[in-house]
Amino acid sequence: MSLLKDKKRGGEEKCPHPKKSGLFSLTSSVHKSYHIGFVRRVMCNGTSEDSLFSVPLEHLCPPLQSVVQVNFFCDYEESKGNYLVDVDGNCMLDVYTQITSIPIGYNHPALTKVMTDPKNMGTFVNRPALGMMPPEQFFEKLVNGLMAVGPKGFSRVQTMACGSCSNENANKAIFIWYRVRAGPWISGVLLFFFQVPGCPDLTLLSFMGGFHGRTLGHCNALLFSQTCSLLTGPSPPFPQLRYPLDQFERENAQEEACCLEEAEDLIVKWNQKGRHVVGVVIEPIQAEGGDNHASFDFYRKLRGITKKHGCAFLVNEVQTGGGSTGKFWAHKHWGLDDPADIVSFSKKMLTGGYYQKDGFQPDKVVAGSMCGTFISTFLPYFLSLLLSSSLLSSSSSSPSLLSSFFSSSSGSSTRGLETTLRTCC
Amino acid sequence: MSLLKDKKRGGEEKCPHPKKSGLFSLTSSVHKSYHIGFVRRVMCNGTSEDSLFSVPLEHLCPPLQSVVQVNFFCDYEESKGNYLVDVDGNCMLDVYTQITSIPIGYNHPALTKVMTDPKNMGTFVNRPALGMMPPEQFFEKLVNGLMAVGPKGFSRVQTMACGSCSNENANKAIFIWYRVRAGPWISGVLLFFFQVPGCPDLTLLSFMGGFHGRTLGHCNALLFSQTCSLLTGPSPPFPQLRYPLDQFERENAQEEACCLEEAEDLIVKWNQKGRHVVGVVIEPIQAEGGDNHASFDFYRKLRGITKKHGCAFLVNEVQTGGGSTGKFWAHKHWGLDDPADIVSFSKKMLTGGYYQKDGFQPDKVVAGSMCGTFISTFLPYFLSLLLSSSLLSSSSSSPSLLSSFFSSSSGSSTRGLETTLRTCC
Repeated sequence: MSLLKDKKRGGEEKCPHPKKSGLFSLTSSVHKSYHIGFVRRVMCNGTSEDSLFSVPLEHLCPPLQSVVQVNFFCDYEESKGNYLVDVDGNCMLDVYTQITSIPIGYNHPALTKVMTDPKNMGTFVNRPALGMMPPEQFFEKLVNGLMAVGPKGFSRVQTMACGSCSNENANKAIFIWYRVRAGPWISGVLLFFFQVPGCPDLTLLSFMGGFHGRTLGHCNALLFSQTCSLLTGPSPPFPQLRYPLDQFERENAQEEACCLEEAEDLIVKWNQKGRHVVGVVIEPIQAEGGDNHASFDFYRKLRGITKKHGCAFLVNEVQTGGGSTGKFWAHKHWGLDDPADIVSFSKKMLTGGYYQKDGFQPDKVVAGSMCGTFISTFLPYFLSLLLSSSLLSSSSSSPSLLSSFFSSSSGSSTRGLETTLRTCC
Repeated sequence: MSLLKDKKRGGEEKCPHPKKSGLFSLTSSVHKSYHIGFVRRVMCNGTSEDSLFSVPLEHLCPPLQSVVQVNFFCDYEESKGNYLVDVDGNCMLDVYTQITSIPIGYNHPALTKVMTDPKNMGTFVNRPALGMMPPEQFFEKLVNGLMAVGPKGFSRVQTMACGSCSNENANKAIFIWYRVRAGPWISGVLLFFFQVPGCPDLTLLSFMGGFHGRTLGHCNALLFSQTCSLLTGPSPPFPQLRYPLDQFERENAQEEACCLEEAEDLIVKWNQKGRHVVGVVIEPIQAEGGDNHASFDFYRKLRGITKKHGCAFLVNEVQTGGGSTGKFWAHKHWGLDDPADIVSFSKKMLTGGYYQKDGFQPDKVVAGSMCGTFISTFLPYFLSLLLSSSLLSSSSSSPSLLSSFFSSSSGSSTRGLETTLRTCC
């Protein structure tokens, strides 16, 4: 069933870009930020393509599943560091990093060592139900891994499997936190019968363009997103800033003030009509519904609004967490003593989950403890590497974990991107 | 931070059951079925305990996360086959199998071999975004893995990460399938703005006691479940059969007829009030809200009702799939030519996902392709072992993969359970 191999052997559908014949570089669709890019191959003749196949796509997966988003097929054995190699042997500098899920590059030797360590085999080949039968080392892994880099002020962490379920269960924790305060809470049990209150008449506020996962209980507010949700709620506009920032200070301040005013108005209105806004959910940088930024002051004021109206504040750091903004958590830029009630994470953190304040821990099992056991084994090693290196240093003269890991250079045309990646991702 | 180790070394909190000092056996809470059990330790003095710790629980994880469901801590390196070893060295026959997620026992040599094969390292340590940048072998893995055991009549499979998101995205596929047929579908894009139609006014029918995951978009109807959902919908009673079956044939037939009648009435009523029941979701055996069975005839008639009213029929095989009922898919027992529109799976299948008919494949990306890359690498090997063995054979004289894997026998008291496990799990 190896169509791809057969095609390559037979020389049919010859790749127009044989190995190392062209300059394969990268252009980024990110024009004013640093946290997510888009892989594009720039050919030696100056043309570019977003999607290349050595075999017609319809010969591969379409009979089995949707492939409309497939860009190309990769050779993950040959990929190294920041360089992604496709099945034709083309080598590309990659700042897309599997939708920001590769924290320290492909096939990092330290991670390979963890993988081949016989001591870890029992955890890898078995599938511990961590919430019920954790391995002996689980507590240590939490302490040395997630809690070692936990945002200040958070003493609890709930592991989950992915970004979507991290946000979903954080939403659920907020609903239950509100219910416990507001009642009725029937002897610690949320009576559930496919109706209210099991199906809560509560809601969350999410800004337009926000993205918090692809399951049904999220609170995205994406225009033209091809997904659907069961959660209806208020959705004020997210600030649309004008650039360069120093030339539009007055306009941008006004824009942010308008958005905050509308957010507060919507909280009041939805509360009045009986659909209580029990939480506000936001990304420190909108990373899917556009590449949208707001000032740190905007977030500080929004945090104030959540406190004023008794809303929980969930900061979704699935895409921004793990060091990609120059600080380990993007919300640290805001400089607040009490920046959030819950902080969700996934992707570069190698496991999903959320940090929460004590009050958001239900007294009974609600969320279930889900975690990528396999990948969480890596986490302490990754964090050790990250924290002992100068990856988060802004000094270009500092030695860099990633630069020392590079075994090849793609020439001056890619050096700028390497620097960007080194200091920002 | 190794509290557990320190305690053991210091001899404090001495385990009352030192290694091999007692007969550690198993009693099951499953009284009339075979698909899920509950681990219990029976001590040499005849007493039993569900939960044992060598260190007080509050010294471990509670400061970090909820542990109210933790039964005990395991030594996954020492566990083998069907025998689970805890951190005190106690060895137990385990039919709970990590909530039915271990298909062929702990530390199976074939899976360990896959794990240590250098060829697989690139897939393991990197995290391919399968929906966008799959590895070269992905198609082969789908064909040799999931499609090799796909239910008859299903030509498409969508991989997902876990059981919850498999059911969630199957629900979403049903909503979109219905919208496409009913309109309005705006040029292939489901306009989504935190409101209808992005937040659809559609619903699904799920029987009381049904369980389909712990995310917010599921359609559980569990009494006293400590969870919550955003999906409201009809929930008819599931048959409560009386046993022994041959003594209550008339009563059970009447019970099932009543449940079917109520299900059909509810579909009509919810449709009339504008909340269209676009799908019916059911487990072949209710496996969380009780251990509840219905006759194959009940399922055949229910399938007829879904066809009559144009509802999609989603069969949730997350807990029953993978051979645990004596057939690879539990719904095969029904003997129908067209048993379902979508079949979801996870757990013993080592990756989540769902099989679907062609009509349920959206023309645009909706679900996203999520899959446990790491674990899906195991799948073809597991299936090869399963299919080449007589694990699904009911003949007790056949050689068994699991029995041949047992390196030790726990004596006659456990042989009955081994046989049960061998033929049923």
